[in-house]
Amino acid sequence: MSDTSAPQTTFETRLQAVARDVAAILDELLHDNASPGEIARPARLVAAMRHGALNGGKRLRPFLTVEAARLLGVEGRGVLRAACAVELVHCYSLVHDDLPAMDDDDLRRGQPTVHRAYDEATAILAGDSLLTLAFDVMADEATHPDAQVRAALVLGLARASGLGGMAGGQMFDLAAEASTVPHTVEEIIRLQAMKTGALLRFAVEAGAIVAGATREQTAQLVAYGEALGAAFQVADDILDAESSEEELGKKVGKDAGRNKATLINAIGLEAAKARRDALAAQAQEALSGFGAGAQVLQEAARFTAARRS
Amino acid sequence: MSDTSAPQTTFETRLQAVARDVAAILDELLHDNASPGEIARPARLVAAMRHGALNGGKRLRPFLTVEAARLLGVEGRGVLRAACAVELVHCYSLVHDDLPAMDDDDLRRGQPTVHRAYDEATAILAGDSLLTLAFDVMADEATHPDAQVRAALVLGLARASGLGGMAGGQMFDLAAEASTVPHTVEEIIRLQAMKTGALLRFAVEAGAIVAGATREQTAQLVAYGEALGAAFQVADDILDAESSEEELGKKVGKDAGRNKATLINAIGLEAAKARRDALAAQAQEALSGFGAGAQVLQEAARFTAARRS
Repeated sequence: MSDTSAPQTTFETRLQAVARDVAAILDELLHDNASPGEIARPARLVAAMRHGALNGGKRLRPFLTVEAARLLGVEGRGVLRAACAVELVHCYSLVHDDLPAMDDDDLRRGQPTVHRAYDEATAILAGDSLLTLAFDVMADEATHPDAQVRAALVLGLARASGLGGMAGGQMFDLAAEASTVPHTVEEIIRLQAMKTGALLRFAVEAGAIVAGATREQTAQLVAYGEALGAAFQVADDILDAESSEEELGKKVGKDAGRNKATLINAIGLEAAKARRDALAAQAQEALSGFGAGAQVLQEAARFTAARRS
Repeated sequence: MSDTSAPQTTFETRLQAVARDVAAILDELLHDNASPGEIARPARLVAAMRHGALNGGKRLRPFLTVEAARLLGVEGRGVLRAACAVELVHCYSLVHDDLPAMDDDDLRRGQPTVHRAYDEATAILAGDSLLTLAFDVMADEATHPDAQVRAALVLGLARASGLGGMAGGQMFDLAAEASTVPHTVEEIIRLQAMKTGALLRFAVEAGAIVAGATREQTAQLVAYGEALGAAFQVADDILDAESSEEELGKKVGKDAGRNKATLINAIGLEAAKARRDALAAQAQEALSGFGAGAQVLQEAARFTAARRS
C-alpha cells in the first residue's frame, strides 16, 4: 500500500489516519528545544533522530496500540503518545540493525539509512536517544494520569525490547547467521517471536494497559498480538524471497544465500505460506469475543499476511 | 584507590560496601533465565552485558544514590536497585562510547572493551540491552511500592541520559573534536554538564526521589550533584593530562593532540585545578543544611576532586 493510493477498507483508512497522528506527535517530540530536566539538544542529533523516525513508515505498531485502546472505548492524545513510544523503539531498532556491524544496509524505505545520511557514531547515538525517549514518553504524565499505568507501560516496553525480547532476538539472529548448523523450526519460531513478535505483541498490549482492560480482555488482545506478530515475520520472510528491491525500497533476496534463520529455509515456501495464513486466522479468532468492534484489528491481521511491502 | 587497600575514611568504607552490594544486585539482574514478560535470554548477550557491567568499577553513581537516600533516613534493597539502574546506564554509555565509530578504545579498567572481547554487533546490542534493563529495573515494583516514585525515576533517568543529557553530550563532544574552531569555555562547560554531569546529578536526585525528599532537600541535593558532576569531569581532564596509562588502565594523553573540548585546552591546567577545587567546595557547601549526616557525601566531593584514577 503506498501513501497516495485511495484507501480501500476501513482498516486502510484507519491506518492512514493513525500514521498522520503519529507523525504529528513524533514531530512535536523531536523538537530542538530542551525539555524540562534536559540541558540542550544537539541539532545534528535531533536531525538524525528525525531521519530515523519521520520516514513515512506504515506505523503498524502504533496503529495496533491505538486500535486496541479504541476497541475498549479509549481514544485521545495519551493513547497516541503511548503508541508513539512503541514506534520510537521500533525506529531505534531499525537504526541500529542497519549499522555496518549488524545488517549493513544502505537503504531503508528507499532512503539512505541514518549512518549513510550522517555517520556511524551519530547513528549509534540517534538509536540510543530514540530508545531513551521512548521511556521518557511512557513515564510522562501527559501519556496517562495514573502512575501505575505509566510504570506498567515502561516495564512492558522494556521486557519486550531488551535482552529477553527484541534485542535478544537480533542477537540470536546474528548468531544463527554465523553458524553453519541448520536451524530447527523451534529455534526459528523463538527467534522471530523475540526479534519481531515481542514488540508487535506489546504494541497491542500497550493499548490494553492504557485503556484499563480487564484480565480477560488483555489475554484475548495479547493472543491476537502474538499470532499477528508471528504472521508478520513469516510474511516478511516470504516477501524477501519473492519481491523486487524496487518494490520494497531495501535489499531483498539476501536471506537465500546465507544460513539465515527463516522459516522458508527450514520448511519451504509453501509450508511457510500455510503457516502465515493459519496465524492470521488465529489472530482474527482471538478477537471473536469482542464482536463487530474488532473488525479493524481483524482486517489488520489479514493485511499483515497479505501485504506486498 | 584499589579494591585491596584498607579503607582510610568513612567515605572509602561506604564506597566499598556499596560497590559490593551493587555488584551482587547486578549479578542477580544479569541472569540467564528470562524474567516474566521475556521469552529467552541469549547466553552470549548476557555474557557481554556482564563483561560491560561487572568490571570492578568504583560505583560512584550508585554510591551517590544510596548515600543521598541514607541522608534522608531510607536504606534497603529498593534504593540499591534504583542505584543499580543508574549504574546500568553508565555501563551502557561506556560500552557504546568505546566502539570503533566513537572513541575507539581497546581497554577499559585494564580489560578488553566489550567489542574487543566479543564483537562490534554484540557490543551494540549489549549497550542497548543494558540501557533497556535500567528502565526495567526503575519501573519494577521491587524498586519502590509507589508507582509515582517509579515513574519519576524513569522520567528523570531518561531526561538525564538521552538527547538532552548524556547522549547529547557525547554528540557535542564528537562534533567538537571534528571541528577546527577553538571551543569556548561556555561550550565546554555545557558539554561536560551533559556528557558526565547529568547522570552524576541524577544519581543524587534518584536517592532524593526514592527517599521522598521535600522540595528543599531535593534542591540542596541536586545543587550538590551538579557541582560534584562538574568537578568530576574537570578532574578527569586533569587526570588525562597528568597520569600514566598503567595507573588508569586506559589510554591517556589522547586529549592533548586533538581539538578535544577540555577545560585544560580552554583555560590551562592551573585554572582548571582551581575550578575543580572551587566546585568541590561548592558541592560540600550545598549540603551544609544537613549537618553532620552529610559528611560522607562531602568526603565524596573531596575524593572526586582529588582522585588519582
